[in-house]
Amino acid sequence: MHDIRFAVLGTGGIGRRALDVSREKPGLLPVAACDRNGIAIDHDGLDVDELLAATEGNVASDGGAAVKQHGAGAGVVASAQARSTETPIEDIIAESDAIDAVLIALPNLEHDFIPRVAERFTGAGYEGVLVDVLKRSRVIGMLDGRADSFEESGITFVCGAGATPGFLTGAAALAAQSFVEIESVEIHWGVGLKSGYEDNRGTVREDIAHLPGYDIETARELTDEEIEGIVDEHDGVIEFEEMEHADDVLLERAGICDADDVSVGGILDVRSDEKPTTTTVSVTGRTFDGEHATNTFELGDETSMAANVNGPALGYLKAGVQRNRAGEYGVFGPADLMPEF
Amino acid sequence: MHDIRFAVLGTGGIGRRALDVSREKPGLLPVAACDRNGIAIDHDGLDVDELLAATEGNVASDGGAAVKQHGAGAGVVASAQARSTETPIEDIIAESDAIDAVLIALPNLEHDFIPRVAERFTGAGYEGVLVDVLKRSRVIGMLDGRADSFEESGITFVCGAGATPGFLTGAAALAAQSFVEIESVEIHWGVGLKSGYEDNRGTVREDIAHLPGYDIETARELTDEEIEGIVDEHDGVIEFEEMEHADDVLLERAGICDADDVSVGGILDVRSDEKPTTTTVSVTGRTFDGEHATNTFELGDETSMAANVNGPALGYLKAGVQRNRAGEYGVFGPADLMPEF
Repeated sequence: MHDIRFAVLGTGGIGRRALDVSREKPGLLPVAACDRNGIAIDHDGLDVDELLAATEGNVASDGGAAVKQHGAGAGVVASAQARSTETPIEDIIAESDAIDAVLIALPNLEHDFIPRVAERFTGAGYEGVLVDVLKRSRVIGMLDGRADSFEESGITFVCGAGATPGFLTGAAALAAQSFVEIESVEIHWGVGLKSGYEDNRGTVREDIAHLPGYDIETARELTDEEIEGIVDEHDGVIEFEEMEHADDVLLERAGICDADDVSVGGILDVRSDEKPTTTTVSVTGRTFDGEHATNTFELGDETSMAANVNGPALGYLKAGVQRNRAGEYGVFGPADLMPEF
Repeated sequence: MHDIRFAVLGTGGIGRRALDVSREKPGLLPVAACDRNGIAIDHDGLDVDELLAATEGNVASDGGAAVKQHGAGAGVVASAQARSTETPIEDIIAESDAIDAVLIALPNLEHDFIPRVAERFTGAGYEGVLVDVLKRSRVIGMLDGRADSFEESGITFVCGAGATPGFLTGAAALAAQSFVEIESVEIHWGVGLKSGYEDNRGTVREDIAHLPGYDIETARELTDEEIEGIVDEHDGVIEFEEMEHADDVLLERAGICDADDVSVGGILDVRSDEKPTTTTVSVTGRTFDGEHATNTFELGDETSMAANVNGPALGYLKAGVQRNRAGEYGVFGPADLMPEF
């Protein structure tokens, strides 16, 4: 039944939600969770209820730390199942014979952060699946550049496996099947993040880096107060255009279209849980019989960002494990894998 | 560039369109096409232009024969590249070291027809990919029952890989990713088949078998005149409800929902090329955070049935070849594979 044992790196918003969702996903057993100060590990399965309750309020806001910022305790060690460690990744790798997959749920505020995390796994000879939910286009090339080392180690790296890129990239890849030539892919998302705001400060900070006048470096330097100021300036509703989301290179990499033909934008409302716009993928192309048309994929407005990130992340993780067990190593994008339910 | 060499069994509407589409699909080289009276084979690649022109008017209407019914010549032997044979499948298998995949584009008017075709490949020790575009739910179980023999032979069998089941099954599997529990999957298709009618008589006959009062056996016995009579009774627009399409068992098989939660219906208009309704997949479910929502996938109305069958069929074929080369054998449905572009 639980034939996939997985670990989560990071117990901020995404890591904690992944543990939460996994309770309702058949075949998944969470056996480890860590942040940079601690690790909880139980090969019979973590007590997710306890871990979520103990780490409530974890945020991943400044400087890449997925550590509890307020309340008692600090990070995952607030859980009775956890212990302190200065070497969480090495501790995970030490147990890796009993870990099939690792979900990297760390903020990616430095471009090479996830590639460097991956290097620590290859350096230690990890054999298994790594999954990330990164956003930035330029990171994919860094991972592809490490494909040989993944193959040597026996790692199946599934990259860009959240909502966008991830879920919506897969939808675009599927929608492309009517066509022999893709003319454009437009991804437009809506996120209402009122009640989830505290839990997703890292995501909001990363989104701000896509606004005109900001980049990853300047966004990382912003204080929480400065971020609140930006949110206030926009009355809580921030619109994004031409974001650097890796859907573009992931679709190009799969031979579906040029990266330039892909555009990603969206609207974030941090003062409402209602989506300010319906999340839509529109794929326009030419059919073999000379017609032009647009296929569309729409997410129901009641689906939260957390549902659309973590369901697919775990679905792609399961698909990655199947590939890994078949001996297929290297870097896989969402367009290469049908996520499993 | 052309790293997948494939054959087509059947040169009726679907077989011929698959050859047509493959000309614009990177990495695919059609090397053989056959029907029950002949075979065309060229390992450097068939001359698809010549073959399509020579076989124009092929229909696959009565009794499972994919043989030209009118005009000069009879079936694929009308092509200058073809020769007569009484053993087309054996002839394909004899060349199978140089054939990576076989698309079975034969009408499936008998339930066990495709399973029996597959048995001939396993019996002859074929190693490679078989792809079908079957529709009926009950055939999937027959194929699963033969999984061991596929594995022994080294066959990766991709079943139900047309439009529905196939493309739309994959869309439902992907749309399910927002949810932890699926409540319903509704597939509703529209097909305008005026100019494609002559080329798709077999499909129309198979659809009529889904009407109340008909089944596969009675539909097979209908004369072309009787079919025209049924079409006339409906003024050319036939509506179908609760069709036995294998989307249901293919989604259940992938652990996504119960077959009973899946419904397939549609509207066929044989007197217009405009679709009488937009083809839509609606997946309703419960998210991990307790919301209920519906994700939808819609095909642009300008996409023809031929585009939506043959693009995905070849996309799933390519994905099947990748699995086969990795040593993964057995039966795969659309929810198990992301089709490649």
